[in-house]
Amino acid sequence: MREKLISPTEDFSEWYIQVIQRAELADYAPVRGCMVIRPYGYALWENIQQSLDRRFKETGHQNAYFPLFIPYSFIQKESEHVKGFAPQLAIVTHGGGKELEEPLVVRPTSETIIGYMYSQWIRSYRDLPVLINQWCNVVRWELRTRPFLRTMEFLWQEGHTAHATFEEAEEETLKILYIYRDFAQNEAAIPVILGKKSESEKFAGALHTYTMEAMMGNKWALQAATSHNLGQNFAKAFEIRYLDRNNQLQYCWTTSWGLSTRFIGAIVMVHGDEKGLKLPPKLAPIQVIIVPIWKSDEEKEKVLAKIGELKSKLQAFRVKVDDREEYTPGWKFNEWELRGVPLRIEIGPRDVEADQVVLARRDTGEKWTVSTDDLGSKVEEALAKIQANLFQMAKKFLDENTYRLNDYQEFKRIIESDGGFVIAPWCESPQCEEAIKEETKATIRCIPFEQDGQPDRCVYCGKETTLKALFARAF
Amino acid sequence: MREKLISPTEDFSEWYIQVIQRAELADYAPVRGCMVIRPYGYALWENIQQSLDRRFKETGHQNAYFPLFIPYSFIQKESEHVKGFAPQLAIVTHGGGKELEEPLVVRPTSETIIGYMYSQWIRSYRDLPVLINQWCNVVRWELRTRPFLRTMEFLWQEGHTAHATFEEAEEETLKILYIYRDFAQNEAAIPVILGKKSESEKFAGALHTYTMEAMMGNKWALQAATSHNLGQNFAKAFEIRYLDRNNQLQYCWTTSWGLSTRFIGAIVMVHGDEKGLKLPPKLAPIQVIIVPIWKSDEEKEKVLAKIGELKSKLQAFRVKVDDREEYTPGWKFNEWELRGVPLRIEIGPRDVEADQVVLARRDTGEKWTVSTDDLGSKVEEALAKIQANLFQMAKKFLDENTYRLNDYQEFKRIIESDGGFVIAPWCESPQCEEAIKEETKATIRCIPFEQDGQPDRCVYCGKETTLKALFARAF
Repeated sequence: MREKLISPTEDFSEWYIQVIQRAELADYAPVRGCMVIRPYGYALWENIQQSLDRRFKETGHQNAYFPLFIPYSFIQKESEHVKGFAPQLAIVTHGGGKELEEPLVVRPTSETIIGYMYSQWIRSYRDLPVLINQWCNVVRWELRTRPFLRTMEFLWQEGHTAHATFEEAEEETLKILYIYRDFAQNEAAIPVILGKKSESEKFAGALHTYTMEAMMGNKWALQAATSHNLGQNFAKAFEIRYLDRNNQLQYCWTTSWGLSTRFIGAIVMVHGDEKGLKLPPKLAPIQVIIVPIWKSDEEKEKVLAKIGELKSKLQAFRVKVDDREEYTPGWKFNEWELRGVPLRIEIGPRDVEADQVVLARRDTGEKWTVSTDDLGSKVEEALAKIQANLFQMAKKFLDENTYRLNDYQEFKRIIESDGGFVIAPWCESPQCEEAIKEETKATIRCIPFEQDGQPDRCVYCGKETTLKALFARAF
Repeated sequence: MREKLISPTEDFSEWYIQVIQRAELADYAPVRGCMVIRPYGYALWENIQQSLDRRFKETGHQNAYFPLFIPYSFIQKESEHVKGFAPQLAIVTHGGGKELEEPLVVRPTSETIIGYMYSQWIRSYRDLPVLINQWCNVVRWELRTRPFLRTMEFLWQEGHTAHATFEEAEEETLKILYIYRDFAQNEAAIPVILGKKSESEKFAGALHTYTMEAMMGNKWALQAATSHNLGQNFAKAFEIRYLDRNNQLQYCWTTSWGLSTRFIGAIVMVHGDEKGLKLPPKLAPIQVIIVPIWKSDEEKEKVLAKIGELKSKLQAFRVKVDDREEYTPGWKFNEWELRGVPLRIEIGPRDVEADQVVLARRDTGEKWTVSTDDLGSKVEEALAKIQANLFQMAKKFLDENTYRLNDYQEFKRIIESDGGFVIAPWCESPQCEEAIKEETKATIRCIPFEQDGQPDRCVYCGKETTLKALFARAF
């Protein structure tokens, strides 16, 4: 018997770490702040990659690969960018046994080096738009790290596009944000709130940043993806220019956007429960776990033979058979529940006789017996129900824990007691934003696109405003 | 008009660089020795990845991700490994604004850090074999670099497996080598020679290294992939041990194997010609380029409408329509020949009337008219013929330029004049190997698996031997 998983209501942080490790999503690496993504976690990442990559390609984006190392001088060219990233850089000072003349930065993000290349490639309006994405690793020196959520090195995709006009860049920035939402809601079953970051929370060097925020199981927020309209800031820093139709030289308008392995942390924290992981069927590395039940070698042979037959009916799904001898069926049930497999099939000698199997849902715990006729359709239906239910449960949780108010005492009470998202009027002053952050640790996650436009008073200073912001504590 | 591509027979190195740049496979990066893989080159890499990844997964391997940074002390633990890699390391000495206590190495390969993790994960014979692969970037400080062939940073896959016995590790090492050959010959249309590296050419830390060697268009060799049986060297350095069935602690036997973006260089240099790239249909990012021909707006409309119809018959292929207005059809023919698209479809107003199109093969230059009935099958057939012909042409070239001999004067004459592969008897002494290398610049590429076993005399010293080695100049 293994030690019981700690309850998420008892200690959410500790529960998160235990789930990550016991479900074998990731392990700590021998380098401070780094992690190893284990096969089960990486298979989840591959499914995320495929889902997103398909969407990017359908909208005309192509993948490419830019260097890991960036000359230090590049980082300095955009003044806000260097301010934001300088404290987080990892620096290569020696190569091939010699000290380098100019130190190299291990990319924390690639606007600068890609900006430089775009300045080489783009000549005319005919070359625009340039729509490129890259899947890669990046490094940001972090003091406090947590697997997937904040690690020194992480994997992500970073899209970088260049356009002829502000409007086109803005359209791209939003198009990608909606792609992220479509992915989050329809593949990961995670409801999200879209909005714009405040000035203090926007990307270093951006004109403005759009974000997709999700509510975790402890009612904190997680920034699940961002999309930046970079304006002409990087175009001017790197001389990304094109000849327009009138043969005039113009600066491009650029965007960048990214989603990282952090999203795996969101999946864990949105859907997980006291039994462990709960994976959405569309992204689960294993959608169906088959656990055979036997008491004798004879029974074993019979049951496994039947499973061999059934597998041909389940070719459309990602199926695994756990036929290990050293563990009991009960142990296996717990194990695959911990690892979040959406659907379990149990089959013993009596089921073989009766041409039936038992199905068990990870999300509801429901168990029922079905005949093996047309098993594929039954599994498909069950997985679709699980996918839908995960979204509905998460949506209900989000809605129930989102408060609309304009009273600061109430605001503080909610944030400091049970937690949740608070949508409250804000006067747009950085001073109010900062004061709220200091007093409650809640930050402005975004200014949601959905606004009622009603006149109200800033929750902190009382000044008149029609704007509402989303406040929460965040990972 | 663009400047003509230099002929590969005039200056093969310059031709290679021109093709890479003009076909937009890659570009030089602003960091010495680094390159940018452009969308067309990256799409080729994605097709390579998919082909290999499918084969790895079919044989039970899983992907994972290990950290980019390795503690310097890890590299030192296996004595041969550190000797081989120390001169090539990039070192991070500063992070987050501070000097690090222990410098970090940017991975040149991951045996050490993966070995460490395996020592944490593997406990019992039940945990074996561990079959893991990772797709990632690695960095090796190189003095002389060339796009794809030798760059400071490159992309690759590195497989790392752990087994209970020498025999299982050896079986794995060979299984992967045959996977590489299957991929090279059947997807990339590149004939290869399999064999074992000599002691001086094996991987730093390996028991022995198997290799797949291919002949480039200038008759030099390129090591296209390697597979290493690491014996217990890394298991002992990192304490990778397991309890066997008798409860005895045993060291594991490990392997590693890799294929990199260098393989793109092989595709360029094996198939390319005076017109540029020639891509094998199975890996080509664009398999079919459609070039519409028109003289008036009315014709244009008619032709493009027809192409719209035809595209539905070609959904099984990767098709692109080049409908740009600013270039002539002739310019486009050259452009897509340069970029190696296997098959071109030309269609003008008369073709529309006659329900026909012109097909043109990139490999043979053959052009012929076909009716649009059942166009999909005709395209499929043409692509299959091109794929087969590319392999046959490369195989013929390899065979015609491979010499079996035992006379050293003849050996030198071949290597120093026209070039080629020389299969010659070798006594296994490193002195003969070294002397031949110094005198002719030819190295032992491998000891081919195919051996006639006939007694002969070492091509250099004359000592009796039955072993034949493959000698060539190499990239």
